[in-house]
Amino acid sequence: MATVIPLEHIQKRKASSALDALSSLVAEDMVAVNQLIMQRMASGVEMIPRLAGHIIASGGKRIRPMLTLACAVLCGYKGQRHRKLAASLEFLHTATLLHDDVVDESNLRRGNPSANALFGNEASVLVGDFLFSRAFELMVEDSSIDVLRVLSRASAVISEGEVLQLLTTNDSATTEQTYLEVVRAKTAELFAASCRIGAIVASRPSSEEEALRAFGLNLGIAFQIVDDVLDYSAEQERLGKTVGDDFREGKMTLPVILAINRGNEAERAFWKRTLDDCDQRDNDFAHAQDIIRRHNALRDATDRAKHYGAIARDSLGLFADCRMRQALIDLVDFVTDREF
Amino acid sequence: MATVIPLEHIQKRKASSALDALSSLVAEDMVAVNQLIMQRMASGVEMIPRLAGHIIASGGKRIRPMLTLACAVLCGYKGQRHRKLAASLEFLHTATLLHDDVVDESNLRRGNPSANALFGNEASVLVGDFLFSRAFELMVEDSSIDVLRVLSRASAVISEGEVLQLLTTNDSATTEQTYLEVVRAKTAELFAASCRIGAIVASRPSSEEEALRAFGLNLGIAFQIVDDVLDYSAEQERLGKTVGDDFREGKMTLPVILAINRGNEAERAFWKRTLDDCDQRDNDFAHAQDIIRRHNALRDATDRAKHYGAIARDSLGLFADCRMRQALIDLVDFVTDREF
Repeated sequence: MATVIPLEHIQKRKASSALDALSSLVAEDMVAVNQLIMQRMASGVEMIPRLAGHIIASGGKRIRPMLTLACAVLCGYKGQRHRKLAASLEFLHTATLLHDDVVDESNLRRGNPSANALFGNEASVLVGDFLFSRAFELMVEDSSIDVLRVLSRASAVISEGEVLQLLTTNDSATTEQTYLEVVRAKTAELFAASCRIGAIVASRPSSEEEALRAFGLNLGIAFQIVDDVLDYSAEQERLGKTVGDDFREGKMTLPVILAINRGNEAERAFWKRTLDDCDQRDNDFAHAQDIIRRHNALRDATDRAKHYGAIARDSLGLFADCRMRQALIDLVDFVTDREF
Repeated sequence: MATVIPLEHIQKRKASSALDALSSLVAEDMVAVNQLIMQRMASGVEMIPRLAGHIIASGGKRIRPMLTLACAVLCGYKGQRHRKLAASLEFLHTATLLHDDVVDESNLRRGNPSANALFGNEASVLVGDFLFSRAFELMVEDSSIDVLRVLSRASAVISEGEVLQLLTTNDSATTEQTYLEVVRAKTAELFAASCRIGAIVASRPSSEEEALRAFGLNLGIAFQIVDDVLDYSAEQERLGKTVGDDFREGKMTLPVILAINRGNEAERAFWKRTLDDCDQRDNDFAHAQDIIRRHNALRDATDRAKHYGAIARDSLGLFADCRMRQALIDLVDFVTDREF
């Protein structure tokens, strides 16, 4: 008896195997990166590796270091510099996560208690600073001023993006354009830098560096939009994943922005009460999901993500066809179709 | 009619004029550094320069950038690289101040409302990150891997020191040795790096780099001990300066550590209640000051500071006598005799 598998499920499975393909292509490098991460978290102050380890080991996808490794290999790089830089990127990312959780006053991260909930805000701020410094130490050990320029710039842009996001929080007048600026700064610039570094270590011409930068930037925008969609997804909820964090924190993400733009007076009043005035009651999140569904905001936000995904895919056009290029192209599908 | 001026007042006046002498020797460079600081605080996100400006303009002594400028000049440096690096050091320092205030939940900094009290903890964390990134951007523009190595290392050590300090907070069993490790990491390493950079930009031999590092390190330890003494000083209180912050925050600084070591059972119970158990009542601070005075803890802590000051002074021995060397020697007196 044949089982009918819905097309959607096939797509999701395809998406997940795309990440597996990329992972296996960089598996050996990734083992070395994970070792570096563990080594460099070490400190005479024992609480530092304990707290940093909590977030670093908590099952992130390691997508940024993977991009650096993959792009370096795509560029024909044969050395080991990309490993240290990949570790550096994960530290930079982890530092921003620690500070984000403090800013958001989150108690959960990826469904587990967040570092600030376990260790306190103070320690999270300071260990974030430590990881940030460690990231720079690793970059400095690499000794390339070009790499340092790219990463120190990215790091400044990320914090500008985070401040801008803070200013749009609890402001239902936030536009899609401003949202895109936040996403570009806080997420996509680090994706772009992660990819670009691959071309720099391989000493490739600026056309390839630029292509990888564009790939990372657009992939990063798509990644963040999908992240924001998943936070309102009924499917996520069914799977026992955490949803509703953005709503509770009054974060102005694309699903909400589209729904507000398309909404009627009563809906606007609802958004104003729940997001601007932080007055949230039982069932408000379910009601928010209803309004968002009624306006097709999740579907349309995902379509926006796919637009950036398409640009990312096309920016790989100047590289010769090979398994790594195909894995990166498939990664775009993973990012836009993923459920986690 | 002759007025009798107490010897102590003459010493203080001398101390203050020592800082003035150093300031005037680096005045032109300092104007350029201040311009750089203003330029590089700029951001498309308008809140960033507003918040950063609040703390940067709030009357700090700019002692770290001044050290870089002075040490470069002492080393015969004629270029302009030291200006950008001096600005970078002030950014690094300001970033740690912003994060410190969040960690300490301080509402006042140098007697003014702190940035976190005015703008919120979230913004202070993120703008701290921005200044940290800007500091690295400025260093990277200088393009010296040696400089980057020194500063990225210092930055990691600072955050380790801050975490260690956090772990000793509200722990009256903290030893003088642990206190010294905290002070060395959180304060003295950046003083050391500030001075050392002066020799590096001037391409001086490692003996001079090492001498300036030792000068900065010991000056930094003296500086922090005196800072911690001033927070219990009756004279400060009389002058309308803020005192008692460390006591209220349960910070384990040298005056308290000495008093605890020398105290009787009843005093230990007092420290345990106020510092470990955070149970503080009206007049507890005045009582703490009494106990500290009875054990000569402020005088003896200041003597400890003078010990490090003496090492700092002697480490300048291999430089030829000149106005800049004299100004740096006098700076040691300012640091140990200062009242602000």
